[in-house]
Parts: sequence; C-alpha cells; structure tokens
Amino acid sequence: MGVMALTLCFCGACAAEEVTSAAPDIVKAMNVMWTLIAAMLVFFMQAGFAMVETGFTRAKNATNIIMKNLMDFAIGSVAFYLIGFGFMFGKDAGGFIGFSSFINPATDAHALGVAEDWGLNFGTLMFFQTVFCATAATIVSGAMAERTKFSAYCIYSLVISLIIYPVIGHWIWGGGWLSQMGFHDFAGSTVVHSVGGWCALIGASILGPRIGKYDANGKPRAIPGHSITLGALGVFILWFGWFGFNPGSTVSAFGNIGHIALTTNMAAAAACVVTMCFTWIRYHKPDVSMTLNAALAGLVAITAPCDVVSPLGALVIGVIAGIMVVVIVEFVDKKLKVDDPVGAVAVHLGHGIIGTLCVGLFATPELAESVGIGAGLFYGGGFKQLGVQALGILSTAAWVVPLAIIMFTVIKKTIGLRVTREEETAGLDIYEHGAEAYPDFVEKSV
Amino acid sequence: MGVMALTLCFCGACAAEEVTSAAPDIVKAMNVMWTLIAAMLVFFMQAGFAMVETGFTRAKNATNIIMKNLMDFAIGSVAFYLIGFGFMFGKDAGGFIGFSSFINPATDAHALGVAEDWGLNFGTLMFFQTVFCATAATIVSGAMAERTKFSAYCIYSLVISLIIYPVIGHWIWGGGWLSQMGFHDFAGSTVVHSVGGWCALIGASILGPRIGKYDANGKPRAIPGHSITLGALGVFILWFGWFGFNPGSTVSAFGNIGHIALTTNMAAAAACVVTMCFTWIRYHKPDVSMTLNAALAGLVAITAPCDVVSPLGALVIGVIAGIMVVVIVEFVDKKLKVDDPVGAVAVHLGHGIIGTLCVGLFATPELAESVGIGAGLFYGGGFKQLGVQALGILSTAAWVVPLAIIMFTVIKKTIGLRVTREEETAGLDIYEHGAEAYPDFVEKSV
Amino acid sequence: MGVMALTLCFCGACAAEEVTSAAPDIVKAMNVMWTLIAAMLVFFMQAGFAMVETGFTRAKNATNIIMKNLMDFAIGSVAFYLIGFGFMFGKDAGGFIGFSSFINPATDAHALGVAEDWGLNFGTLMFFQTVFCATAATIVSGAMAERTKFSAYCIYSLVISLIIYPVIGHWIWGGGWLSQMGFHDFAGSTVVHSVGGWCALIGASILGPRIGKYDANGKPRAIPGHSITLGALGVFILWFGWFGFNPGSTVSAFGNIGHIALTTNMAAAAACVVTMCFTWIRYHKPDVSMTLNAALAGLVAITAPCDVVSPLGALVIGVIAGIMVVVIVEFVDKKLKVDDPVGAVAVHLGHGIIGTLCVGLFATPELAESVGIGAGLFYGGGFKQLGVQALGILSTAAWVVPLAIIMFTVIKKTIGLRVTREEETAGLDIYEHGAEAYPDFVEKSV
Repeated sequence: MGVMALTLCFCGACAAEEVTSAAPDIVKAMNVMWTLIAAMLVFFMQAGFAMVETGFTRAKNATNIIMKNLMDFAIGSVAFYLIGFGFMFGKDAGGFIGFSSFINPATDAHALGVAEDWGLNFGTLMFFQTVFCATAATIVSGAMAERTKFSAYCIYSLVISLIIYPVIGHWIWGGGWLSQMGFHDFAGSTVVHSVGGWCALIGASILGPRIGKYDANGKPRAIPGHSITLGALGVFILWFGWFGFNPGSTVSAFGNIGHIALTTNMAAAAACVVTMCFTWIRYHKPDVSMTLNAALAGLVAITAPCDVVSPLGALVIGVIAGIMVVVIVEFVDKKLKVDDPVGAVAVHLGHGIIGTLCVGLFATPELAESVGIGAGLFYGGGFKQLGVQALGILSTAAWVVPLAIIMFTVIKKTIGLRVTREEETAGLDIYEHGAEAYPDFVEKSV
Repeated sequence: MGVMALTLCFCGACAAEEVTSAAPDIVKAMNVMWTLIAAMLVFFMQAGFAMVETGFTRAKNATNIIMKNLMDFAIGSVAFYLIGFGFMFGKDAGGFIGFSSFINPATDAHALGVAEDWGLNFGTLMFFQTVFCATAATIVSGAMAERTKFSAYCIYSLVISLIIYPVIGHWIWGGGWLSQMGFHDFAGSTVVHSVGGWCALIGASILGPRIGKYDANGKPRAIPGHSITLGALGVFILWFGWFGFNPGSTVSAFGNIGHIALTTNMAAAAACVVTMCFTWIRYHKPDVSMTLNAALAGLVAITAPCDVVSPLGALVIGVIAGIMVVVIVEFVDKKLKVDDPVGAVAVHLGHGIIGTLCVGLFATPELAESVGIGAGLFYGGGFKQLGVQALGILSTAAWVVPLAIIMFTVIKKTIGLRVTREEETAGLDIYEHGAEAYPDFVEKSV
Repeated sequence: MGVMALTLCFCGACAAEEVTSAAPDIVKAMNVMWTLIAAMLVFFMQAGFAMVETGFTRAKNATNIIMKNLMDFAIGSVAFYLIGFGFMFGKDAGGFIGFSSFINPATDAHALGVAEDWGLNFGTLMFFQTVFCATAATIVSGAMAERTKFSAYCIYSLVISLIIYPVIGHWIWGGGWLSQMGFHDFAGSTVVHSVGGWCALIGASILGPRIGKYDANGKPRAIPGHSITLGALGVFILWFGWFGFNPGSTVSAFGNIGHIALTTNMAAAAACVVTMCFTWIRYHKPDVSMTLNAALAGLVAITAPCDVVSPLGALVIGVIAGIMVVVIVEFVDKKLKVDDPVGAVAVHLGHGIIGTLCVGLFATPELAESVGIGAGLFYGGGFKQLGVQALGILSTAAWVVPLAIIMFTVIKKTIGLRVTREEETAGLDIYEHGAEAYPDFVEKSV
C-alpha cells in the first residue's frame, strides 16, 4: 500500500488495533473526526494562498488573483472527484498509475476498499484528498501572477488536478512504485509542493517576466506588493492550516499528532528567526516579505520529514530553510531571471526538495523504524534512505517537467498564455473581469 | 422529537448505541467535542459575513457594517440564551412554539433533558444553537446595507433572535409540527437561510433602494464594493465555516460527517464553475463578485439536503445554484427593483428555497430511508417528500413575512428605518459612529 | 500538581478514569486530539493580534507591526522550547521556579512525566504551552506600537518568553506555590493576560507617548487606526481562537468544555452590548473601536473563571467588563497619561485582574467544589477564595513589575527603546524595514 499506508500501520492502526476489538466503531469515528477537521484546515489554506498572492502583488491585479485562487479550488474539486481520484487511487496499473473508480467513485468497490484500508470512510478520504490536490494547483498561481491570461489559467489548473498531480500522488501515496521502494514524503513536500513548484518554475519561465521587472541590463527591480497586512494574514492562515496539513496526514487520531504539530511549528519559527537575522545582516534591515516567506519555506521543508525528526532536528531544518529561502529567491531572481512575484518557486519547489532530502538526513533511527524506513545520514543511517529520497525527487521532476513544458507550450501556441502589453499595464482586473478591486481608493499609477 | 432528532437516531445514536454499553462516556464526549468544534466554525462565519458585507459595499459605510455584524451576534447571543431558546426548545405547546426554560435554562430540567436527548450536555447544545440563531440574524444586514439606521438595526436583530427565528426553529428542529410531518432541513436551508432571507427581502423592500441605485427610468446601476479582497476572504471564511454548519449538524461524531463534508464542498465548487462559465457567456467576462456569491449559493442550496444526496447529486445541485444565483440576482435587481447590495436575497432566500426543494428532488432512497423520509422525485420517490418540503417553505413564509412586515413598518413609523439623505451621501460611518474606517487613505468621492 | 492539575483531576481524569480500564488509549487519544485542536486555535490568535494591532494604528507603521507580531511568536516558540519550558515545568525548586528539562526536553524524563500527568504526550503539551506563552509576549506589542525600536522589541519579547512568563506559569500551572494555595486561574487571566498587561503598562510608560498624542496642556488626542475592517477581523479571529484558549484549557475531552464555551461566549457578547449602550450614552454615538475592545475585555475577564461560573454569572462578568473597559481606557489615557494605541493595558491588565477576582466573587459552590476551590463571595463563599485570588494578583505584579522596569530601563540605556523623532514622523516601515505596507495607494500625511 505504500508509505502512507505503512505510516498508518505503524503509528495509527497498530495502536488502534489494541483497542479495535473493544471498540472498532469508536476508533474509526475518531480517525474520521480527526481527518475531517484536518481537511477543513487544509481547505482554509486556500484563503491563505489567496491573501498571500494578492497581498504580495499590485492592486490593479487583485480581482484577477482572487478569481484564480477561487477557481483553481473549484475546478480542482470537481475534476479530482470525477477523474483525478481514479488516477491516484484507482486499481494500480504497473505501479505507474491508478485506473478505475472514475466519474462516480462513491459507488465504486475499489474506492470504498481504499477508504477502508485508510481506516476512513469514502467521503472523508475523498474530501481530504481533494483539498490536498487543490493545494498543488494553487501554488502555480503566484509564480505566474500579474500577466497570465485567465482562460489559460483555468486550463492548466484543470490539467494539474486531472493528471499531473494524481500520477505523482499514485507513485507516492497511492501504492505506486516509489512508495514500494520506501520513499518517504509524509505530508507532501514532493507530492504537493514540488509538483506545484515545478509547474510554477516552468510556467513562469515560458511566460516571461512582467513588464518592468528587469531593466535593460537584466538587473531585477523590486515590484512591491499592495498590502503587506493581507499578505501577512495569508501567511498566518497558511501556518494555521498547516496544522491540518502535517498532523492531519496521519489520517488517524492515534498517530503521533502532537509530535508532528511541534516539529511543524518549530521549523517555521526557526526559519523566521534565521531569515530575520540573515536579511538584517545582508540588507541592513530585517526584511518583512522575506521573513514571511521564510515561515512558509520552513513549513514546506518540514512537511516530508515532520513525523520522523526530533524537535531539535526540526529546529535545524528551520535554520536551513531560513538561509536557503533567501539564497533561492535571489538565485531565481538574479541568475535564472525568472520573475516569480511571490517567491513560489523558492518556497514550494526549493523547499519541497530540501524537505524531501531532510528525511534522508535527519530521520532518527527510532522514528524511522516506526514508519519502516531507514535512518537519516546524520543519525548514522548512511546514504540508503537519502538515495531513495533523491530518486523520488528526480523521478517527480522527470514526470512533471516535460508535461508542464508541453502543457504551457500548447496553451501558448493556441489560446495564448499571456495578456497583451496594454492589459498588463492597465491591470488584469479591468480587462479580464471588468471590475476594480478597490474602486473607492485613489491609487498611484504603478 | 422532530427530524433533527430522527437524524440523530438513525445516523448517530444507532451506530453509537452498539458501543454505548461498552463506553457511554466516550461516545458522549466524542459527540460533545465534534459539536463544539463545529459550533466554533459556525461562530467564525460571523467574521465571514462581516468581510463579505463590508467588502461588497462602499468604504464610507465600512465602520457601520462592522458594528452591525458584531452587534447582531452579541445581541443575539444574549437574547437567545434568555428568551429565544425557550421558544425554540421549551416544552412544546401544540406543535407551534416552545414555552419553558426561559431566563436561566442552564438550571432547567426540561432544557437539560433536551440536551440529553441530543446526546450532548446543556452548554454544548446552547452554544451550538446560539451560533445558528446568530447566522439567521446576520443575513438581513447585507440586504439593508448602506442606508439603515443603526438603532433600527439593533431592534430588528433582537426581534429575529427573540421570536421570529425560534418559532421556525421549533417547528423544524424543536419537535414542532413540521418535524412531525417529516419535513427535512438538515442544517438549515429553511430554518436559518430562508428565515434570514425573507426578512432581508421585506426589509430591503420597505427601506427602498440606495440613492443613485436606480436612474430616472428605473434602470439599476452597479455600485461596486470597496474591497474585492476582503469580500473574497469573507467567502473563504464562510466556506470554511460551512464545514461546521453542515457536517456539524449531525451533532454526533458517529453521523455520516465525511459524506456531508464532501457533498457540501462539491455543491459550492460546482456552483463556482458554472457561474464562471455562465457569466463569461452572458457578460463576456467571468464575473468575480457573482462567482464569489455562487459559492455561497451552492452552500446554501446543499444545506438542507447535504445528508441525503450523493456526491453527484450535490454536483447537480451546485450546477443549478450556479445558474440560479445569476438569474435571481438579476430578477431582484431588475424586476423586483429591490436594492440588495450583497445579493443576500438571491443567496439566502432563493437558495434556501431551492435547497429545501432539492431534498424532495435528489434524496437517494437509501439515504432518505436512513433518516426516515421519502426518496426524491428524481430517484423514483414521487411527489410525497417534495410536497412536504414545499409545505415547509410556504409555512415558513406564512410566519416570517407578515411578522417582518409588521416589524419593519412599526420601526419605520416610530424611530425610523432609514438614515437621512445627507447621512447616506456622506456615509454612515461619520454620522452614526463618528469614525471613518480608513482615515489614512485618500478616497474618491462616491 | 497545582490547580490546573486539580482541574484535570476533577473534571477530566475522573470522568475518564471510569472508562480508563476499558480503553485507556482511546481516552488519551481523545485528550490529545482536543488539546491539539485547541492549541491550533490559540496559535491562530496570533493572526488576530496582528490584525487588531495593525488595524488600530496608522498605515505608515503597518509593516513594522506585522513583523513584530510574526517575530514574537517565532522567537517565543524557539526560546520557550529551549529554556522557558524548563523554568515553567522543570523540577520544582522551592515552589518558585522549575529547573530541569532545558535544551532538549523531548528526551527528558521529567518533561515526559509532566506530559503524562496531564494525560497528554510531550509534543502535545509542549505545543499547547508554546502558543500560550507566545500570547503573553504578543500583548505587549500593541501598547508600545508606533514608536518602539524593532531591535528592542525582539529583545524584550525574548526575555518575556524566556523567564518572566515561565516563572508565573510555574507558580500557577507548574505546581508552584500559588497553585498549592488554591489560586484558580483556569485559562490565564493572570498567567497570560496580566503578565502581558503589566509589561505593556511599564513598557508604554517608560517609552512615553507618540508624538502628537498629548497637546501642550496634556489633553489626549485620538489617533485613529488605519483600518477598522482589519481591526474587526482581528477581533473576530481572537474571539474564535478563545474557544481554543478557554475550553481547551481543560486539556481533556472529558472536561466541561461545552459549559466553558458557553460562558466564554456569553461574557464577550454581554460586554459588547453594554459597551455599545454605555458609549452611546456617554459619547452620543455607539463607539465601534471601544465595542470591539469590549469583546476582548469580556473574553479576558472570563478566562480565569470560565469553568466555575454559571452562564448568568458569565453574563454579569460581561456586563462589568463592558463598563470597565471604557473606564480603564479613559483612566490610562487621561489620568495615567500612558499612550496605549490599542487599549492593551485596559483589556489585558485591567480585565486580567478583574477576571481573576471574579473567581472569588462568582464561583458557584458546586463548580468551585468540583475543582477544589472555595465558592465566590456572591455565592456565600465569604472572602477566603477572593483573598487567595487577590494574593495571586499582587504576587504576579510583584514579580513582573520590577523585572519589566529593569528590562525596559536596561534596553533604554543601552541599545535604546525608541526610534528617532524623524523615524516616528515618517513611519517605522521605511526606516526600520525599508518597505511600505501599501505602496499602491495614496495616503494622507498623518
């Protein structure tokens, strides 16, 4: 059944098994309650993503960004139910893809059996998986903000939810080949964040930078967002929602959920502290946007290893994230010259990879054993688990990158990926949706 | 005990009963925990309503709108505890009204007995019912925004929480005559949303449109809201809170809560997709405000039937809501010529009615049987359940509409319902509260 | 083990004990689940504090305020794990301080034992205690807003989390001398709110008022905040989070959590109603900022006694808070001439003290007995419990006030506590962080 199932087996179901004979209904009801509450928190992350992306971009595009964040969730919810779920959790076809349970999985024996294997019922499993899928799609939005055609956005959101994400999901959480190899990605540093992050990187590259982002010499110019307060609110909402994302991925009230909440919080907090200090030294002022992004970077980096590292391990992972988020943001901006308005590539791709590797570096022997994987390099586990983790990262790239290139290129050649120069300058809100976000306020011309 | 109690009996208590003998304290504690968490989420919907209403109206009235949303909850919380609860859950008087457990229900044997019947304790039941009551009162605020006297607002909020809502609540959830007939309104499409919606329609009609809403020929003019981002944040918060509203209405951790979360999400998502497409075709641009309202329309429409329809049924209900929200908003605006700044009548009354009828149309035989009602028309159940649902809708209107007319007319003739022309033009914030919402920003004169 | 442990013993563990023999794993898993969810809600209060403080202050300082609210949580999370926890829950040294379990408490036998005593595991206890600690630190921020150096802020946040808060926490919740005397502070009116409130009062006094706050005759001038909507959103988020703060402080799913949710809500709601009426009479207009603060004042005041008062008792406590918040805000502003931009001293210190006294005034005999304390004065309990409560308040002041004076004075004399006149006039955002919060909007010069 793969790693996720193993997790269940070791952390959840076994503890549960002792009491199952006494009260199987109670155990199942508790798992359902916990998983559902976690899924609700993950749903709420959509509000966080919407606020972060809007806050960190210009007022003239705010309506468009709201609409994108709303629609990727709406389109994704429908598409994942009808099709995506079948590719992810349908009957395994050679370890590569699921293939059953389409259109009406609620009545499908296989889908019901999967839900039962997870210790849940179908509704709970489907809702939980839907909100995770939608997170992957949302990530792309920020990197391509302020110049992407809305129709193009709807189409690539749909493709991600329909096929790109579900296949990786099958490999890692659906019983596919990577899970069979012992690859460990507890809550989705790879499955969710680096899948979204790769699409973001490819999309933003093919799209090109916003007008005015690079001067004639290719030097990047900062384009500040229109509301630090809304951006920060978004970060707080995301941090809050992550307590559903990570601890909820036990899908069991009997998993080590308290430990996971603690490691999750520790990595995010440590990343903020380090980025504050690092930017203070580097830019002579503590940088607020970067420190907000550091919280997210820490959260993404702890997502894969949150269940197998100690609180001090999580602290060190946070320290790494706090440095690396600055380094990668600058690298993307100055070296790759990819214009990513909200830093989504650094946060989700960069730290999705870092987090996935951290399993192979920081997993403690005891916790690693409890989920059936090898200990991390720094705990005497050697390179074995680290190698499997690297393989998972590379395979994910091998699937997502070509598909994303094809997808964005086809969209570019057909309906077009980018709005006109005129639209971009005036703002997407008027041209794409006929509505300003803030009609009562006097705006500067930016 | 009525439908809600039946629900408990079939979905919750029976599953629970099997384990009760082994661990009755655990079962009760789980029900309490689940119901409390759900009630907290429903409380949080107050923030959502406040953001939606403020965001979709003008900056000059934002302080007033905040105050209204705060006070209807505060006044309602106190009034419902002291009086409203007794009318809703007091000893039944002829099926029409409850009449006991006033002033200090926490010490009242009848009230404690009701809580026990629900599988909860008194504090949990009272808190859960309070947040539902407050939702009904809040709905009215949006439709009457930007021109209602604040004192008038406080009074009619009080009357709704004190008597209008509790009587309907008694009929449907308190063991009254409609529940005895098999009327099914799982989480309150009728009890909460159409009660609020009828008051909103009557209130906005008696109040008259905002200055400048209709031109000399009676043609409506769009008056855009001052912050799409805050409005959207409100919609995300409401959607999040709805996972308390609907799944929480099992008041039992052993109900089919995962199924309900899934149908709830599906209807909202499908409504967004359809409204996006429908407005794209109709207005040549995907309309953001309307699509945000579509999410709410889908949520209201699934509120009554969420426990008795399949995920695909929920998807179809969402599709209907996605079309109807546009149609009803236009009908209210252009035909009724009622000025409803946030679309509350379309969302809450229109879709409260649609959702209640959908029980009689889409209830699957199996799920309908599990809650002791008849199957829907589209599933071979004939017109029986549909007729009962229609009767409930009509009776609710027969109670709420005359009372609302009397209430608003009396207020109009005594203290006055509407601010002066001068106040309305300058904005209610200055005249009613002596405080601007955004004193640091330069505002356009609107 | 102190009062908190007693609470557990009476409300939680005893009810649990009956079922423990049958299903100890289930009981523990339920306690963990409940406590974790509560802790997540308390975490989310950080977003509430950030929005309240930003909304109630000027746009030119918004970025700085966001950064402060982010960093006190981040710094506090790390510091409390490494050091603060050991002072609070380490091995008791003479009733005064804990002293063990530093640096890596996750592996420490004493810390694990404490977690076990609470009916939780270590991760859950640590995460729960961390978010409470961070709340105390955050409170200070608002009172010292708009003129404090950011570097100074980081330092005093750290000191509060490291030593000031943990020592009081040890006295009251960690088995120290006050808990041994029967002092009752259920969820932290004293431990959290008045500790933060005393630091806020001392800090704001030493710092001095903002430029322009008092005219030449010492008459205070109102300096309105830049966004009532964000401030209100913050209040709603805090109210929501308080349902984690108070009911969650049972740290047991078997405590009287429904009752606590009800009393919590009642006090907040009643305070709003009373402040609305009181300001309407006093200032001729219902004051929105004050009524928003009233909600918080009611919440702080019910925090200590929420588990031992009846719903009607909570209502009366809310009424008191609704009057006192106005009185204390005016007293601080006009008599003390301490410039507290958001009213933090009135809300957190004033009502922290009021709430702590209310235990000794309003505790009902039955509920008081269930937690092993004396009944309140108004319920025939005489002055005994009231005296213990007063002692707790005074001792807390005796610890916090001198330390806060030393801390702020040392900071003032060394790195400096306050920004320059020029920075304050231009706004801290530009000078401290090099970033405006709202670069797209035209701002008035304020």
